[in-house]
Amino acid sequence: MSSEAGLQSPLYLGIDGGGSKCRVVLVDSTDQVLGEGLGGPANPLRGMKIATDSILTATQQALQAAGMSFNQMSQLVAGAGLAGVNMPQYFQLFSEWQHPFAQFHLTSDLHTACMGAHHGQDGAVIIIGTGSCGLADVGGQRLDIGGHGFPYGDNGSGAWFGNQLVHHVLLHKDRIGPATLLTELLSEALGVTDTLDIVSHFMHATPTVYARYAPLVFSAAEQGDVVAAQIIVAGARHIDNIADRLFSLKPQRLSLIGGLAYKVEPYLAAHVRELLAPAQAAPEFGAVWFARQRQAVV
Amino acid sequence: MSSEAGLQSPLYLGIDGGGSKCRVVLVDSTDQVLGEGLGGPANPLRGMKIATDSILTATQQALQAAGMSFNQMSQLVAGAGLAGVNMPQYFQLFSEWQHPFAQFHLTSDLHTACMGAHHGQDGAVIIIGTGSCGLADVGGQRLDIGGHGFPYGDNGSGAWFGNQLVHHVLLHKDRIGPATLLTELLSEALGVTDTLDIVSHFMHATPTVYARYAPLVFSAAEQGDVVAAQIIVAGARHIDNIADRLFSLKPQRLSLIGGLAYKVEPYLAAHVRELLAPAQAAPEFGAVWFARQRQAVV
Repeated sequence: MSSEAGLQSPLYLGIDGGGSKCRVVLVDSTDQVLGEGLGGPANPLRGMKIATDSILTATQQALQAAGMSFNQMSQLVAGAGLAGVNMPQYFQLFSEWQHPFAQFHLTSDLHTACMGAHHGQDGAVIIIGTGSCGLADVGGQRLDIGGHGFPYGDNGSGAWFGNQLVHHVLLHKDRIGPATLLTELLSEALGVTDTLDIVSHFMHATPTVYARYAPLVFSAAEQGDVVAAQIIVAGARHIDNIADRLFSLKPQRLSLIGGLAYKVEPYLAAHVRELLAPAQAAPEFGAVWFARQRQAVV
Repeated sequence: MSSEAGLQSPLYLGIDGGGSKCRVVLVDSTDQVLGEGLGGPANPLRGMKIATDSILTATQQALQAAGMSFNQMSQLVAGAGLAGVNMPQYFQLFSEWQHPFAQFHLTSDLHTACMGAHHGQDGAVIIIGTGSCGLADVGGQRLDIGGHGFPYGDNGSGAWFGNQLVHHVLLHKDRIGPATLLTELLSEALGVTDTLDIVSHFMHATPTVYARYAPLVFSAAEQGDVVAAQIIVAGARHIDNIADRLFSLKPQRLSLIGGLAYKVEPYLAAHVRELLAPAQAAPEFGAVWFARQRQAVV
């Protein structure tokens, strides 16, 4: 790929920036992948310096993979979907970034995930990962639900399932809640059985730590555990409620994204599952299409 | 009070050490108060240096109030009920403290609260403050329930009520939960109405911050709000469960302690309320009686 070609038909950089890592993809005007890159956290809540460094590191990797030089960054039309920029102050902060690209178009990671899932077309997504949130993007109207954070929000997410797990294990241990297989599964996973040792493990735990143990709830339910089944019903009901709210915009497709999506999916209401369609592309491609859409507007 | 009297019949120092402050009381052998003192956090989870400094600062205040000199510390028989020492590693750590007292007897803050509430006699307590926990101490048998921490435990506590409040306000704001007066009350209290501003306020909030807003749930319920009433029923049910478990030791009295106790009390089950009796003395007096009991054993 010569730099001249870059000048003639622009090259696009799609950036998917989350709280733990940042993925970028470099494509030509026909969506041919020229290079990819991976960087650290690109969520401005962690600090602008870390976020912009992560993006630049990942971009340099992608340029190198494409056999291009670093200063060709200035020719790229970049689209970025970043966690945290749904908050106006962080959107503002990132908008003021003296970026090295030809253009830099900014939106939330949820928005680019939705564009990726539906190949830049209208649709809705629900992310069930460490957190939970949903977005519908139909006829230019966008509706954003949840994603407010843990523990006051993000029900039905990995962090929420993990926290419910620990809660019910402690009720069982204290004999103020029903016996549950979750106690045995968590003890095995942690390698400790004493209540105080379990508590020590989760004291000051991050959402990511809770989310790590979420799959145990699904294992227990598969083995017939009633407590686990009740937790899953409550979590799935919350995801159903997000879906029902998104349906007010009448999307034709709904994609579930995130590490826990395939676990929760079978427990969703029939009318929600009816509309499910697999995501067509990763969020970084959604960021490419977002950039192309915005560039057309400019 | 002369130092000679201290030598003849010992003086007792009662220490109640929590996560935010430490209270001490200095009494003679007839429980006559000679002086009191207040220090910072005395929970070893915050660090041994902070905890022991807090205790020494409060003790020096009490000695000064009693007209005694600092080196008379070495004559005191001290009893301490400290948050955190229910965990064996912290109990061990504090047991190894090169304390300046004649004797130093250590137990949990919950245990000394129970001894204070029942004047050193058998009984049970449930603390409903920032956290929630219960203890029964009957015929030498002790049963400890809850107090594991937030958010996986401490249901029915101030932190839990505050978190439930924020959770239901966000459901209302997202229109995936019923309308509730809590939204209006929280917006008024925070001086903001936008969802993102509410979320910003509670992102990374400590249990203490959540607990600050717990009274709003009770105000809303008093005004007929159904969501608030449901939260209170769930919280009170958890406290009832703690009480029922403590009743397995057949205590004759149960005292509720903590800033939220008087709010939750009217919602408890009738059979729990029947056994309620006001706490007879503060936890630092419980620590005095604990020291006297242990001294007798030595």
